[in-house]
Amino acid sequence: MQFEVSDEYIEHIQLLIEEKRNTELLQLLEEVHHADIAEIIDELTLDEATYIIKLLDSTKTSEALMELEEDVRERILDNLSSKEIAEELENMDTDDAADIIAELSEERKQEVISEILDEEHAEHIVELLRYDENSAGGLMAKELVKVNENWSVTGCMTEMRAQAENVTRVHSIYVVDDKNRLKGRLSLKDLLTASSRANISDIYIDKVDYVTVHTKGEEVARVMQKYDLEAIPVVDEMGRLVGRVTIDDIVDFIRDEAEKDYQMAAGISEDVEADDSILRLTRARLPWLILALLGGFISVTVLGTFDAAMQEHAALFFFVPLIAAMAGNVGVQSSAIVLQGLANQSLSGSLWNRLIKEVLLSLLNGAALAFLLIIGGIFLLGFHFWFGVTVGISLISVIVIASLIGTFVPIILDKFGIDPAMATGPFITTSNDIFGILIYFTIAKMILGF
Amino acid sequence: MQFEVSDEYIEHIQLLIEEKRNTELLQLLEEVHHADIAEIIDELTLDEATYIIKLLDSTKTSEALMELEEDVRERILDNLSSKEIAEELENMDTDDAADIIAELSEERKQEVISEILDEEHAEHIVELLRYDENSAGGLMAKELVKVNENWSVTGCMTEMRAQAENVTRVHSIYVVDDKNRLKGRLSLKDLLTASSRANISDIYIDKVDYVTVHTKGEEVARVMQKYDLEAIPVVDEMGRLVGRVTIDDIVDFIRDEAEKDYQMAAGISEDVEADDSILRLTRARLPWLILALLGGFISVTVLGTFDAAMQEHAALFFFVPLIAAMAGNVGVQSSAIVLQGLANQSLSGSLWNRLIKEVLLSLLNGAALAFLLIIGGIFLLGFHFWFGVTVGISLISVIVIASLIGTFVPIILDKFGIDPAMATGPFITTSNDIFGILIYFTIAKMILGF
Repeated sequence: MQFEVSDEYIEHIQLLIEEKRNTELLQLLEEVHHADIAEIIDELTLDEATYIIKLLDSTKTSEALMELEEDVRERILDNLSSKEIAEELENMDTDDAADIIAELSEERKQEVISEILDEEHAEHIVELLRYDENSAGGLMAKELVKVNENWSVTGCMTEMRAQAENVTRVHSIYVVDDKNRLKGRLSLKDLLTASSRANISDIYIDKVDYVTVHTKGEEVARVMQKYDLEAIPVVDEMGRLVGRVTIDDIVDFIRDEAEKDYQMAAGISEDVEADDSILRLTRARLPWLILALLGGFISVTVLGTFDAAMQEHAALFFFVPLIAAMAGNVGVQSSAIVLQGLANQSLSGSLWNRLIKEVLLSLLNGAALAFLLIIGGIFLLGFHFWFGVTVGISLISVIVIASLIGTFVPIILDKFGIDPAMATGPFITTSNDIFGILIYFTIAKMILGF
Repeated sequence: MQFEVSDEYIEHIQLLIEEKRNTELLQLLEEVHHADIAEIIDELTLDEATYIIKLLDSTKTSEALMELEEDVRERILDNLSSKEIAEELENMDTDDAADIIAELSEERKQEVISEILDEEHAEHIVELLRYDENSAGGLMAKELVKVNENWSVTGCMTEMRAQAENVTRVHSIYVVDDKNRLKGRLSLKDLLTASSRANISDIYIDKVDYVTVHTKGEEVARVMQKYDLEAIPVVDEMGRLVGRVTIDDIVDFIRDEAEKDYQMAAGISEDVEADDSILRLTRARLPWLILALLGGFISVTVLGTFDAAMQEHAALFFFVPLIAAMAGNVGVQSSAIVLQGLANQSLSGSLWNRLIKEVLLSLLNGAALAFLLIIGGIFLLGFHFWFGVTVGISLISVIVIASLIGTFVPIILDKFGIDPAMATGPFITTSNDIFGILIYFTIAKMILGF
């Protein structure tokens, strides 16, 4: 079943484009899935890609456009007339069409919308554009199958056949009253197994999960995952059925969110890919590096205040990167666990209990590591016993403080309504570097006395 | 629609359990969704949880059991007899039942399977247990709706009604030949809109995406996401239809993989949660910390070899944490971007091009940061011009090397078939600390001469 976009395949297509052998191109691409068309387009030059988009039927190209990276799509759309874009949009589901239009300039938006021939489709798109991108309203499509509670099963089947023509996947059939208010749902299975003489009101299930247009994307994803839903109806403030969110959009949403969290944790502040331009990658990477540099200045200053120790205890300075690395690693571990707990809403128990647990946990980890450090320091590196003990005790203290910072900074940010995911990666390592070094030298000073 | 498990609600349930007011309990929980039952169980003691599981109907508790964390479920199952577990499994889809059985001890497995009354169900579960957990065979369920290509639409509808009773969600209808070989698919929509006099062979779509029992989980997820599939049929080596994987399992799979990658990047080596025991958390966190400690020993040794510089250029040592932090952060950024490219299979172009790009990118980042460092060092910290230049040039070199390590270590691991996700977090920061410090002092020595 695997379709491979090989170099030869691409070269063959490029040759056909160059020689304008349209019939052969159409024949070759006829059976190719739109997701594969998108992969092919990704390998072509802009002009070649535009040629393909214009040549192929828009039922296929509209879906392929949706699969492309935003920047590739943007350049292709720039090459198309408003009328040509409108044609593509006619063949898209309303949610996809709205997403594409949202990427256009204000002026272009108006032009494209006015070129859409199907007025109802255009109206739906305009409606969707009103909602926040990250809300159920922004994620939903207008396409769905609904029946009136007062219909009979037979009438319902006839009506559904008509509606289903415009809906990619049926999922659930929603039941509404005369005012379009959501009353319940009907599964295709129920309909298949119901007697044809029954009425909808006799067979529909009145318990139905739904969200409102203003429900946040994260919450929609959470509810759909928790209840294993493949589609969820969306109602407006009056309880009227206005759309539905389907699982494929939620899969994309979950993947995007996971990628964002991962990038945030790695100190990347924009959604970038390895193949993006150097300028774009720099823009995404530099901000956190500058923050780390400022943190570095602070650690330089902190170390400077302990320069009196250099004469007698030079080796203390050799342990600085070890201490800083342990503080950073422990902090990142702690923050990662807390962040996942916050994201899954699985963090239970009081703050006090969490504090005690984290202290015990880091004492245990710290003691094990300090033991290894003292043994290693004395036997491998040949340090004096008391020096080893000093570094060991400092290490334990640093680990306890680092793990408390890692645990509580995200929790506190979350309490203040700031995205707790900020408190990971460079932020945690930088602040833990500074605190780690400060604690290390303070304790060393107390024990060794300089 | 939101159901909230409040403290009062849990206390009320605990009171009802204590006083054995079963009728009230059953009434209270009758309308509660199984995913919410799981949340309630999570808040109860083991004995209370077992009481609820035994009291409620197993159609509901079996689904609730699936939603629980593995360790909670394990303890509850330990409290149930093999016959009681078998009853729960009877009400589960085969894939879920197989997952549960796989968690039991070898001896218990045999006992439980022999207690399953529905022989076909038991056989299906045993079949699924043969496959690797992370393959299409291990992810699939036996429940699906299939029709023979030689049937008529009317006959098909009758047969389907019978089959659909046992299938939670129909999705696609698969078409097979007399030898059960997968021939194509039929959507419910097609069936609804087809003439009742048609034959299946006239209306089915012979292009159907499928995977084999041995296809890896990641590949199944990739194909289903790429082609927006909600279910994919699974065939055996003979092309016979043996099961299907549904999107809800893939959603769980994607989320688990994302969590694993995130934890790996944070230096956590087992799948843990904030509420796990201190021992379990220590087991997950200590391995990478020990590795970082060993890395720390190396950096101590490296620094020790440059102790001659301490007399004249003490300030060089103050910059060690800054240099190490920049090396670590840059390395993690680079590796995160490459890892996502590897995971999405979106990494294109030759290694040579990637090398040039990464060098240019890090030179650009490095130059900007070195500029800030020199300006800041001279004006804020009052360093000598040449000293600032030395640290600045070292910083650029460190950033270039760190970003090359971050980029190419995952690529090389991947080429050798090792999980490239290993090459992030503590591994990259530790090795970059060492290389960073080595490069920094080597360059400083060349410029300042000590």
